Amino acid sequence: MKALEEKILSEAEVLPGDVLKVGSFLNQQIDTVILKQMAEEVKRLFAGEKVDKVLTVEASGIAFATAVALELKVPMVFAKKHASANVSGEQYSAPVYSFTHKKTYEIAVSKAYLSAGERVLIADDFLANGNALKGLISIVKEAGGIVAGCCTEIEKGFQGGGDALRAEGYKVESLAIVESMENGILKFRP
Amino acid sequence: MKALEEKILSEAEVLPGDVLKVGSFLNQQIDTVILKQMAEEVKRLFAGEKVDKVLTVEASGIAFATAVALELKVPMVFAKKHASANVSGEQYSAPVYSFTHKKTYEIAVSKAYLSAGERVLIADDFLANGNALKGLISIVKEAGGIVAGCCTEIEKGFQGGGDALRAEGYKVESLAIVESMENGILKFRP
Repeated sequence: MKALEEKILSEAEVLPGDVLKVGSFLNQQIDTVILKQMAEEVKRLFAGEKVDKVLTVEASGIAFATAVALELKVPMVFAKKHASANVSGEQYSAPVYSFTHKKTYEIAVSKAYLSAGERVLIADDFLANGNALKGLISIVKEAGGIVAGCCTEIEKGFQGGGDALRAEGYKVESLAIVESMENGILKFRP
Repeated sequence: MKALEEKILSEAEVLPGDVLKVGSFLNQQIDTVILKQMAEEVKRLFAGEKVDKVLTVEASGIAFATAVALELKVPMVFAKKHASANVSGEQYSAPVYSFTHKKTYEIAVSKAYLSAGERVLIADDFLANGNALKGLISIVKEAGGIVAGCCTEIEKGFQGGGDALRAEGYKVESLAIVESMENGILKFRP
């Protein structure tokens, strides 16, 4: 999505360790003009798919998932993060390893909010190694639902998580795919 | 807001300890149809106020604040929660005591995302004792901003936080105000 790539080029900061800082418009502060455009683009990209629900994980995925669900006029559900496996049997859960925080946490959704046969669009802000998406996919399957696809705001293409999921047959749409960020120079996948 | 009161009456659960459970449509799962209506109602209620930015606190305030900010076409910023006062000087912060979790946590916003002179609309899902709103108000003032008002989805009127802020001169608009919930019977403020 051209408008997002331009926004990233003009406002994002590249920090050591392949960190792309987008807190000024996509994370702690959110530019709702580009957010609305992104949600409309997701609607266009998934126009051929029936979507019953949008699923994300707290906290940074919630704004994007809310905008997408508002656009699709379907409910949004977010998984909660727990420091350890203290999740009751009333919830669907999956472990997710975070490379950023170097630890595994548990994500969980109350069983009341996912149903068998539902077509779920998974949404998240960032896609790098794909661990958060894999955890959410596992939760949808545990609930007997169908993964309609995955959408993310920014994918780090060079970390391979998105392509691995595509190779497994999932429809994964990222609104900007950063192919490399060597020496602070951002290159997007065409 | 009549539609929200009806939704609360038909779907919310009253649990021991004056807990109003709305996870099925306002919290872990979010009904985007009513969310959109709520955002439109906030726009109407604050039509006379200039609003430069919407501010909330993670995680449960983000969906409502996103919808409101999308409607007002202004940026949304969320404060992060920290277990203790481990907040650097690069951030505005305030302590918030949570009655639900019986502990004080620190909420913080990067100084880059709030500016002097900005008119900030504070948004949150629930208003009970008003501690989260007070913390957010303190952060806006520390940044030299102006509180344009506060909006919340559901206020527990009998806990007094909203009326105390109104008595201090703040414009506080809650889309449903529960006046009492004795014996599981919900009564709204007219």
